[in-house]
Amino acid sequence: MSLQDNRSPDEKAIRELVDRFTKSIRAKDIDAVMSVFAPSVISFDLGAPLQHGGGAEFAKRWHELFEAYHGPIQYEIRDLTVAVSGNLAFTHSLNRIAGTTKNGHTGERWLRWTACVGKADGKWLIVHEHVSVPVDAKTGMAAFDLKP
Amino acid sequence: MSLQDNRSPDEKAIRELVDRFTKSIRAKDIDAVMSVFAPSVISFDLGAPLQHGGGAEFAKRWHELFEAYHGPIQYEIRDLTVAVSGNLAFTHSLNRIAGTTKNGHTGERWLRWTACVGKADGKWLIVHEHVSVPVDAKTGMAAFDLKP
Repeated sequence: MSLQDNRSPDEKAIRELVDRFTKSIRAKDIDAVMSVFAPSVISFDLGAPLQHGGGAEFAKRWHELFEAYHGPIQYEIRDLTVAVSGNLAFTHSLNRIAGTTKNGHTGERWLRWTACVGKADGKWLIVHEHVSVPVDAKTGMAAFDLKP
Repeated sequence: MSLQDNRSPDEKAIRELVDRFTKSIRAKDIDAVMSVFAPSVISFDLGAPLQHGGGAEFAKRWHELFEAYHGPIQYEIRDLTVAVSGNLAFTHSLNRIAGTTKNGHTGERWLRWTACVGKADGKWLIVHEHVSVPVDAKTGMAAFDLKP
């Protein structure tokens, strides 16, 4: 006997999109990661510049991230909130990325992630994302050691 | 003769909300700032922790920000994008905060801002926001000197 699932088909589709995003990062599969984003996506990414678009430059960033890790990347999403109305949705979550980098550092980072998702031709794609860590106002350092 | 305005009443209401937010910060008016947020807001703020809610703790953060500036705060929003569907909307923009802090430092910072907005009882309120600056991966420092 399964628990009743009151989620709408659209909310399920968006949760599946987020799940596909997560699995694509774990698999270091750039094409699969790129397939969850609209070509016209505006990304407020963890690194500079302030904002960037989709396409080849975005794919290159994912390639560089994947290359920075020696072996597998652990990627998990918690506290996922999803809201949907018509052809628009947003999600926010705390995303943990962990693994061993090629310079030998093993560790984890918790990122805040907001994704704004739009439906066109029956298909949900991320049209805007925002990834960050908080900043320590006194030192000006990024706070990579915070845990939920 | 005025230019035709094809914006929907909802989009206009959201742009007015953002405008009210901006003016409230310039006026250092905590109650006015708080009035644009839902009490249940989840904020991914510039400073730690990873996330926080609304209410008195959030008001205290605004108070501390306003107190940190000697005299007026300049606050401007550019590249504002607004998308609306039904009772949900999102906006993203680059927000410039400038002024002279109480320790005598005069400068400006460009922040990335994403706001997810919900309509309840005919009223639009921010239910989620995400504020950040990018991070320099090599130094671990927050990049406060980036300009659009």
